[in-house]
Amino acid sequence: MSSIGKTVIVGVGLIGGSLAAAGRGTGRLGKVVGVGRSRANLETALHAHIIDEAASDPIAAVRDADLVVLAVPVDTSVELLRQIAAAVPTSCVLTDVGSVKVPIVEAAVELGVARRFVGAHPMAGGTSTGAAAADKDLFRGRTVVVTPTPDLDVTARELVCSLWQAVGADVLELEPELHDEAVAMSSHLPQMIASSLAALAAADPLHELIGRLTGRGFRDTTRIAMSDAAMWVAIARANRNYLVGAMDAFADLFSRVRDAVANGDEQALSALMHEAAAFRRTLERGRP
Amino acid sequence: MSSIGKTVIVGVGLIGGSLAAAGRGTGRLGKVVGVGRSRANLETALHAHIIDEAASDPIAAVRDADLVVLAVPVDTSVELLRQIAAAVPTSCVLTDVGSVKVPIVEAAVELGVARRFVGAHPMAGGTSTGAAAADKDLFRGRTVVVTPTPDLDVTARELVCSLWQAVGADVLELEPELHDEAVAMSSHLPQMIASSLAALAAADPLHELIGRLTGRGFRDTTRIAMSDAAMWVAIARANRNYLVGAMDAFADLFSRVRDAVANGDEQALSALMHEAAAFRRTLERGRP
Repeated sequence: MSSIGKTVIVGVGLIGGSLAAAGRGTGRLGKVVGVGRSRANLETALHAHIIDEAASDPIAAVRDADLVVLAVPVDTSVELLRQIAAAVPTSCVLTDVGSVKVPIVEAAVELGVARRFVGAHPMAGGTSTGAAAADKDLFRGRTVVVTPTPDLDVTARELVCSLWQAVGADVLELEPELHDEAVAMSSHLPQMIASSLAALAAADPLHELIGRLTGRGFRDTTRIAMSDAAMWVAIARANRNYLVGAMDAFADLFSRVRDAVANGDEQALSALMHEAAAFRRTLERGRP
Repeated sequence: MSSIGKTVIVGVGLIGGSLAAAGRGTGRLGKVVGVGRSRANLETALHAHIIDEAASDPIAAVRDADLVVLAVPVDTSVELLRQIAAAVPTSCVLTDVGSVKVPIVEAAVELGVARRFVGAHPMAGGTSTGAAAADKDLFRGRTVVVTPTPDLDVTARELVCSLWQAVGADVLELEPELHDEAVAMSSHLPQMIASSLAALAAADPLHELIGRLTGRGFRDTTRIAMSDAAMWVAIARANRNYLVGAMDAFADLFSRVRDAVANGDEQALSALMHEAAAFRRTLERGRP
């Protein structure tokens, strides 16, 4: 892949900032312009040499871009794509990093930019936010899902895929619907569960004592409850159908576990715990 | 506290082994005898100098003991207390480390050893098992709940509390019922949730893809699903009533979160996530 002349990253947060930092490290990014509403955050990115220029108007910034990365919350990215679609040069490749792919891919088709829009979702994140949290190694060894549509230009697809590979990620191509269904289970459901558990403990009359009696189990199970609420409300909205399906499936299985506990059906409880442990152990292999 | 002549630790696993290792480090334990069914595990403990002697018969081992620590699964510890109650010298102090306190405390009362039985529960653990996992720093900075009954001998209580303090733990005295209610929420419910989530993903037709698309969120939320199933089946049995109550409360709240997602009630979802995050953040303070 040749280097990219001008890259505009809209949203220089944990993901956008890390991609800028990691991409610059590979030498494949020429000029990098960061766009955002918080001047302080952009200053942080400038001082860290993650971006070369800071801008506040995405429409002006993308006019001569070769690559535009939408690294904003999922609801904002659809809105943003609508705003910039007519302003980007026809040769410019567009991509995003959102956790839900159907709405943005549908918007790209509707806006007539599907040929050069490459939906992407890096399976990486954290509870820290902003350019200060940028980490050039954030994507190393992680899976990045790319959701090409049938009419996607092959060079646009290659540009985005090779950029992710260059920053150390494994690229996995999926249909947008399949991505959204799978992440409802692998990512969005765990978030709802962790937040529900922490909220339940918080509302308990014994919450102080419960807090004192938490070990690593409670803390690990609820760690992601510290994630950004606004971001997750937007994800829940964007992936509502698959998420509700996953939540219903969980509620159904949890109710059977509850009955096994209540009725002393220890064989059923033990079988379920063994299946759970076996699956969970497969995730330990080769993970950072 | 003067040193304890002969300590018998029944069950030289992660908790029993770690208490032996940590206790020896304080110089407060004289002779330490480990009792267990697995000769290989006891050999590991002997080689690591965690115990001085290994024995297979708990009744014979406790005849001249000054302190007996029951560090076996919660169901086994009640059975074990019944077996040894008549064999221990009247001056011997008895304690345990089980995650559920009402059944063992009731057994101590019933067996006439309540005066010198000090129920205890260290809020520490891990997914590793056996003497090989023993860690002398396992209890440092952790809370250990002690559940004294009204007729508990003051010197027995002092002996057990000061031993836990000597190995770096913070001792918190609670009534057995209050302990069991609080840990149903802080420890036993998270286990059922983590196992349910991992089991749901395992049973999904997309389980391979889901596994590939898990980030740190899923993995943290389900880490304790790798815990020992047999131990947890016994805990669920011993704390059935409080655990079922906690599971019902969780199912109720989770169903409200599901409805908020399904109905697009973003205010409710956001409020809940903020409460959850605020509570969870309080657990970050001063924790290892």
